Amino acid sequence: MKIEIITIGDEILIGQITDTNSAWMARELTQRGFDIRAVTSVGDCPDDIIRALDIAFSRADILLLTGGVGPTNDDLTKQTLCRYFGTPLIFSEEVLKQNESLFQRRKIPLNLLTRNQAYVPEAATVIPNSTGTAPFLWFGKGDKVLVSMPGVPTEMKTAMREEIIPRLEKQFRVKTYLRQMYLVTGMTESALAGHLAFFEDNLPAGFSLAYLPSGGYIRLRLSAKGEEHAAEMARQGTVLKQLLASSCISESDQKPEELLGEILREKGLMLSTAESCTGGFIAHLITTVPGASAYYKGSVVSYDNQIKEKMLRVKKETIEQVGAVSREVVEQMALHVAEEMDTTCALAVSGIMGPDGGSEEKPVGTVWIATLCGRELLSQEYHVGRGREQNIERTANLAIVQLINMMQRDPV
Amino acid sequence: MKIEIITIGDEILIGQITDTNSAWMARELTQRGFDIRAVTSVGDCPDDIIRALDIAFSRADILLLTGGVGPTNDDLTKQTLCRYFGTPLIFSEEVLKQNESLFQRRKIPLNLLTRNQAYVPEAATVIPNSTGTAPFLWFGKGDKVLVSMPGVPTEMKTAMREEIIPRLEKQFRVKTYLRQMYLVTGMTESALAGHLAFFEDNLPAGFSLAYLPSGGYIRLRLSAKGEEHAAEMARQGTVLKQLLASSCISESDQKPEELLGEILREKGLMLSTAESCTGGFIAHLITTVPGASAYYKGSVVSYDNQIKEKMLRVKKETIEQVGAVSREVVEQMALHVAEEMDTTCALAVSGIMGPDGGSEEKPVGTVWIATLCGRELLSQEYHVGRGREQNIERTANLAIVQLINMMQRDPV
Repeated sequence: MKIEIITIGDEILIGQITDTNSAWMARELTQRGFDIRAVTSVGDCPDDIIRALDIAFSRADILLLTGGVGPTNDDLTKQTLCRYFGTPLIFSEEVLKQNESLFQRRKIPLNLLTRNQAYVPEAATVIPNSTGTAPFLWFGKGDKVLVSMPGVPTEMKTAMREEIIPRLEKQFRVKTYLRQMYLVTGMTESALAGHLAFFEDNLPAGFSLAYLPSGGYIRLRLSAKGEEHAAEMARQGTVLKQLLASSCISESDQKPEELLGEILREKGLMLSTAESCTGGFIAHLITTVPGASAYYKGSVVSYDNQIKEKMLRVKKETIEQVGAVSREVVEQMALHVAEEMDTTCALAVSGIMGPDGGSEEKPVGTVWIATLCGRELLSQEYHVGRGREQNIERTANLAIVQLINMMQRDPV
Repeated sequence: MKIEIITIGDEILIGQITDTNSAWMARELTQRGFDIRAVTSVGDCPDDIIRALDIAFSRADILLLTGGVGPTNDDLTKQTLCRYFGTPLIFSEEVLKQNESLFQRRKIPLNLLTRNQAYVPEAATVIPNSTGTAPFLWFGKGDKVLVSMPGVPTEMKTAMREEIIPRLEKQFRVKTYLRQMYLVTGMTESALAGHLAFFEDNLPAGFSLAYLPSGGYIRLRLSAKGEEHAAEMARQGTVLKQLLASSCISESDQKPEELLGEILREKGLMLSTAESCTGGFIAHLITTVPGASAYYKGSVVSYDNQIKEKMLRVKKETIEQVGAVSREVVEQMALHVAEEMDTTCALAVSGIMGPDGGSEEKPVGTVWIATLCGRELLSQEYHVGRGREQNIERTANLAIVQLINMMQRDPV
């Protein structure tokens, strides 16, 4: 079943927000066997919206629209859908009630703009929005379907999970999408592709291999469509696993921080971190995983060298002699944060993220990472690149991967 | 001048990556007066790519393509462009040399897949890629232009800034895009829209007002196109500013963390942070701003209550009596992190981000934030919502905004 996603809003076309809804929807729907053919973003302009609907309906069975349904005047999706489907707006007491109770819970009075959210297209099936004021609108067009949703991520996600996806699965039959993921570290994308060239060229028809590089690791996806490929999928997966050998640290679709959490939880170990150049991003990655408090105690973000000395007991002489970006400093940071926070495992980083701060000897992108697990302490130097934000992300991932590698190799 | 952006790659359509390139490009180009009409994502499928090119060329003057140009077999953009423009691939010694020197710098041998990156369409003008192996390809089609770029964000951004945008500006004349931004806090989107309804309804033709809500604040954009509107823009801007009054904390397009950095820098004050539920995200936001080390010393991420006691000297009795999510605890965290790190300003948060950990008395979403500036200490309770990731982001923004408000109100 072919789906197209259309996101509506000037804020996307002028680049003031990044559309993260489409990726979320695409992921959820692909896993259930739906086939996303295209994602299109257009502005809050009725003619552009209608043109996008025509194009999308000409090649897809299901159109999912997000955005342009807020209470303010710049939002025009509802009116445009009325024009497209030739249907008037009618007042829904049910939506009004829903919104009144929502505002009561938030202790805010319901204003006129929000009251107007209760006008809905007569031809649409209204699906209540349990977390916001704009209802979900479901239109039929012959065998095809269009669903209009708010662009607020939490509202969209809640209703997609609870209402929209179940209804789509009921109305449309889909082929199972088979896939196997591999989390690969320590290789560039082209080196990995060279290594797998023969395997890839000899994959059976209907199978495909995709490389999804992130800063610091690559996710590899082997996929095929249809339950009939299940046995062959298992066979190819085993071959691929052998080819990847120790470069593959996981066969799940987990992110490194999720895998690390799982390992720590299984082994019953606690972790602490000491971050300089990553400025809290490692702690953030670790704590985005629900339940991280079971294995993570905290972090000292020692952005200033004084803090490294005072709170992590890094020796002043060490910093003076070899600099803050050095093996000696990250090792002291890791050992001392583990002591201070009373954890078996620790992770420490120091580096130069740019754009300034580089030198001939230590250019922007130079990073030292130390990982501690019990009595074993490992420190390594990396060179991550040029852009500040990418460097922070890449360094955080490399640090987490280094600790995973260490824990997988030498069980505590 | 109308632009369409087309992003190519199966990884987008199955939702394994979020397309952040389009928002970046849209922002850069809008600011220079270009008009983005649509953004489309299609898979690595020649027929779909060609169809997208036809549709986009029918309504835009400039097509910017990203993705599908890696060294691996799943990338088909280059071959598809050859078919579309009826041109063969030829070998470019220049691109080969560029890639050889890039690999030498990284101390990696050049493999065959990367060598093949030097095959380029004959009809294209080749723009070298200074940070990666896939060259930028510039095609003319009558008065129109198509540029194919790698999807790697740093590579795309570097070449866009240094090569592509200057060439587009030279070839196409554009109207100036006038805009004025307002950073608004302390109001919901619908309350703000209600407050501004009369102003908005009476804006002169050609002017528009857009609401861009983020977790914890709203960015408001007043815009018009063409230098002739400059005087009226200034007049309307002044009226809007008066209507917003103290809800507007900035008239620039800065994010709160950038504004906070500017204020601290101007006042010559240092900041430290103590984070519980946000798990390092506040530190991360602050340190994404280049040069943050001038005013930011670091953070204690006390995810575990033991760490609050040990490293932030929060009293055990306080946690036992009123709980970790309380006014008393965040106040102790703020005061003590400022003492430990020797800073004038500090910011501390504790809350329940979910999905677990809530109670009748303190449901998921309950947050306490304390901000310290010199002798003034302010603590406030917030209720942020239901989703974990949104809660972390919203709480971090609210904390930064609370400190900005405090510093703007009471100059130290």
